[in-house]
Amino acid sequence: MSGLSDDLLQALREVVGEAGLITDAERMQSYLSDWRGAYRGQAAAVLRPASTEEVAAVVRLCAQAGVALVPQGGNTGLCGGSIPDDSGAQIVLSLTRMKRIRAVDVGNETITVEAGVILQQLQETAAEVGRLFPLSLGAEGSCTVGGNLATNAGGTAVLRYGNMRDLALGLEVVMPDGRIWDGLRGLRKDNTGYDLKHLFIGSEGTLGIITAAVLKLFPAVRSLTTAWVALPSPQAAVELIGQMRSLCGDRLTGFELMSRQSVEFVLRHVTGVSDPFAEAHPWYVLIELSDTQPNAPLNEMLEQGLGTAFEQGVALDAVVAASDAQVRALWALREGISEAQNHEGPSLKHDISVPVSCIPDFIARTDQALQLAFPGVRIVAYGHVGDGNLHYNISKPVGAEDGPFKAQAEAIMRVIYDQVLEDAGSISAEHGLGQSKRLAAQHYKAPLELELMARVKQVLDPAGLMNPGKLL
Amino acid sequence: MSGLSDDLLQALREVVGEAGLITDAERMQSYLSDWRGAYRGQAAAVLRPASTEEVAAVVRLCAQAGVALVPQGGNTGLCGGSIPDDSGAQIVLSLTRMKRIRAVDVGNETITVEAGVILQQLQETAAEVGRLFPLSLGAEGSCTVGGNLATNAGGTAVLRYGNMRDLALGLEVVMPDGRIWDGLRGLRKDNTGYDLKHLFIGSEGTLGIITAAVLKLFPAVRSLTTAWVALPSPQAAVELIGQMRSLCGDRLTGFELMSRQSVEFVLRHVTGVSDPFAEAHPWYVLIELSDTQPNAPLNEMLEQGLGTAFEQGVALDAVVAASDAQVRALWALREGISEAQNHEGPSLKHDISVPVSCIPDFIARTDQALQLAFPGVRIVAYGHVGDGNLHYNISKPVGAEDGPFKAQAEAIMRVIYDQVLEDAGSISAEHGLGQSKRLAAQHYKAPLELELMARVKQVLDPAGLMNPGKLL
Repeated sequence: MSGLSDDLLQALREVVGEAGLITDAERMQSYLSDWRGAYRGQAAAVLRPASTEEVAAVVRLCAQAGVALVPQGGNTGLCGGSIPDDSGAQIVLSLTRMKRIRAVDVGNETITVEAGVILQQLQETAAEVGRLFPLSLGAEGSCTVGGNLATNAGGTAVLRYGNMRDLALGLEVVMPDGRIWDGLRGLRKDNTGYDLKHLFIGSEGTLGIITAAVLKLFPAVRSLTTAWVALPSPQAAVELIGQMRSLCGDRLTGFELMSRQSVEFVLRHVTGVSDPFAEAHPWYVLIELSDTQPNAPLNEMLEQGLGTAFEQGVALDAVVAASDAQVRALWALREGISEAQNHEGPSLKHDISVPVSCIPDFIARTDQALQLAFPGVRIVAYGHVGDGNLHYNISKPVGAEDGPFKAQAEAIMRVIYDQVLEDAGSISAEHGLGQSKRLAAQHYKAPLELELMARVKQVLDPAGLMNPGKLL
Repeated sequence: MSGLSDDLLQALREVVGEAGLITDAERMQSYLSDWRGAYRGQAAAVLRPASTEEVAAVVRLCAQAGVALVPQGGNTGLCGGSIPDDSGAQIVLSLTRMKRIRAVDVGNETITVEAGVILQQLQETAAEVGRLFPLSLGAEGSCTVGGNLATNAGGTAVLRYGNMRDLALGLEVVMPDGRIWDGLRGLRKDNTGYDLKHLFIGSEGTLGIITAAVLKLFPAVRSLTTAWVALPSPQAAVELIGQMRSLCGDRLTGFELMSRQSVEFVLRHVTGVSDPFAEAHPWYVLIELSDTQPNAPLNEMLEQGLGTAFEQGVALDAVVAASDAQVRALWALREGISEAQNHEGPSLKHDISVPVSCIPDFIARTDQALQLAFPGVRIVAYGHVGDGNLHYNISKPVGAEDGPFKAQAEAIMRVIYDQVLEDAGSISAEHGLGQSKRLAAQHYKAPLELELMARVKQVLDPAGLMNPGKLL
């Protein structure tokens, strides 16, 4: 049974209708844990409003009753940001029924969508009008635009197109008191005061509830080249991306780094993949060039860049995909890492960033510090070189037990984050803080920054009912 | 004589030294009015700190004494944002002595600069390491990075590279209480909480004083093509930019619209320019394509795009610059408009934006409404089509007196801004609010937005000593 008063329940039911109110324990389950099953909570109810006005009415009622709200999209986050606490007193506010494409303005190169639109549907809608919506990430088949905005999602196309923050022109937000901020403007220039949208983007639902957004569209890609390149070191990757970027400019739309360890896990556990090379190499990058022109000479450009790289010993071997199937096969090696690592026992995930130029030294230092403190741990390092973003994940030593390894999680994290701090990096590059990293952020962020964040939270959500226990 | 207490003056002198303190009325003059001479104020003193620590000490002393500060860079703003009020009680804090390039990190594609660095020097420093810093605007020879950040400067390269906001990765800010926020991180991904830098960028010095920034660099441009195209209408410009963008993608780095009236003023008043065409056309665009590749086939691409445009009647005539001198000559036609207009009497400037797709209807509606209300006024419309940004300036009717025309300024502004509001546009696309537009913003922005801005101001600068009378 719900812990909410009958009056409140009745009022909420009147707003969202029977279809929008779930209090049945069984039916609530899928809203109470994330897709990986890493986080689980309890809720007094799950609400599924179908419009901005319904969201606003729900927020108003909950504000009056002092009930906390946990906004939720596709529930694909990795830090527990959309999962309620254990009290059973919070309400999960699922935005998944708000999935209208409100407008496509080709002349303005924008699309206006509601928070519950699935990222993949957004990509497809853009493609239908000959445009690209570039945000691309593993969960794109189920994550929602609202979640992408609330967590400032990243992914593999950030190198060229930026994070979700960079793709948003305007927002519609329900404020903590239930008022609707209509900031749904499709403007590329607007200097009439503080840029409020940037407060809400990346705030993980702690300042208000994003219900819709105006997003940028880009010209469709008509030429594409994908290559898999073996490298001697992370330093080589940093040199190669510099050369390729200088040569190709914005045509360089993907540059993904993987350690041999990462690729080995994929080769071992993912079916249907194979090593593009006969011999093993210590590091690999997946390079993607694209162009709006059909038949653009991307292969020539790639060969030119790689030719120089071979001469300088920056690249050791390379293969260029000759078909769409080969493109998919190369990406499968990259995208299989996360899943493959799960087959090797618990995976301690660290989504960090440092300046691009610091990557080689960061990896060298951190590898050494970890092996010194936790001999034999297997380091699964991969990520987006151009963003300085590494998924620096750790698997247990061969033959070790899960329990003792998991008990070291906190200590391992500290070793890694301490090195991040030395490079003035970030302990959460693209995943956000959610539940899992908020305490670490309290430790690793500057006190003044934490104070400013707390003051902003205080002034926008003084009652603290917006996704409490997350981020801050 | 300064209105400051002897104790405060002495304390400030100890911080900034004799070289950093100006109280002499004569020597203060250049800090008390903007370069156009449109705004003039008084000040108790002008301070010129040479380091972040000095800025912090000054802010601390002024906070204790309750003295308001007006931060100032190159003093090239168009809205009076860096000019003190008439009270003589405020202190102008000039950042122009803080002009160190602190670091150039080619591997990270970033440059770290102090607030007083001149934009042109920043562009040149980038070029020296084979990179591009893309922000480009008329005042680049004297405007400073701090001012560019405080006003979120725009200009002609926004189409491809974004506003100043999009070019900044990290900031160093002296808070209103004198504490230093060290947010000087060169990270392309950092999701560890609210993005504080976006609060300060575009805040016109009302929330704190930006003392340094980490900015993005881009690959150098190695091929460039510039064309001058005659068009029948603004609608044709919107169609042409859509086609060119789809065809050329990121190679389209400039697309400037000018009415015949604008160009006529330049031809009449600027020496050394000439009409590229034998006959007059109603509208023109200046198109720039660029590429990181040397000898990129930009002319072929341009001809392809224009060929289609001629067939469809979207373009009427075109000339492609065949030399650097011709490139400069075409840009001179665009860049001469503002100065040329001054020769035709008072120029009422309106820096507005609407969605790109709304430009044609906006111009048609507003032209009509203006001619109905103020017959004979000459409309000098030009701007950045891809940004939806029009400089929709007004000159008096031929033969009219200055006085009565200037008396209509407010009424003319209302007609224009009312039309902006209809398209959910912005009354200040790139110039900011400063003194001149803050009251208009109070009228045209939504009450909730103004309230949120006021609450943010209140929580960060409760004493209201940071550039009072500006923006809010």
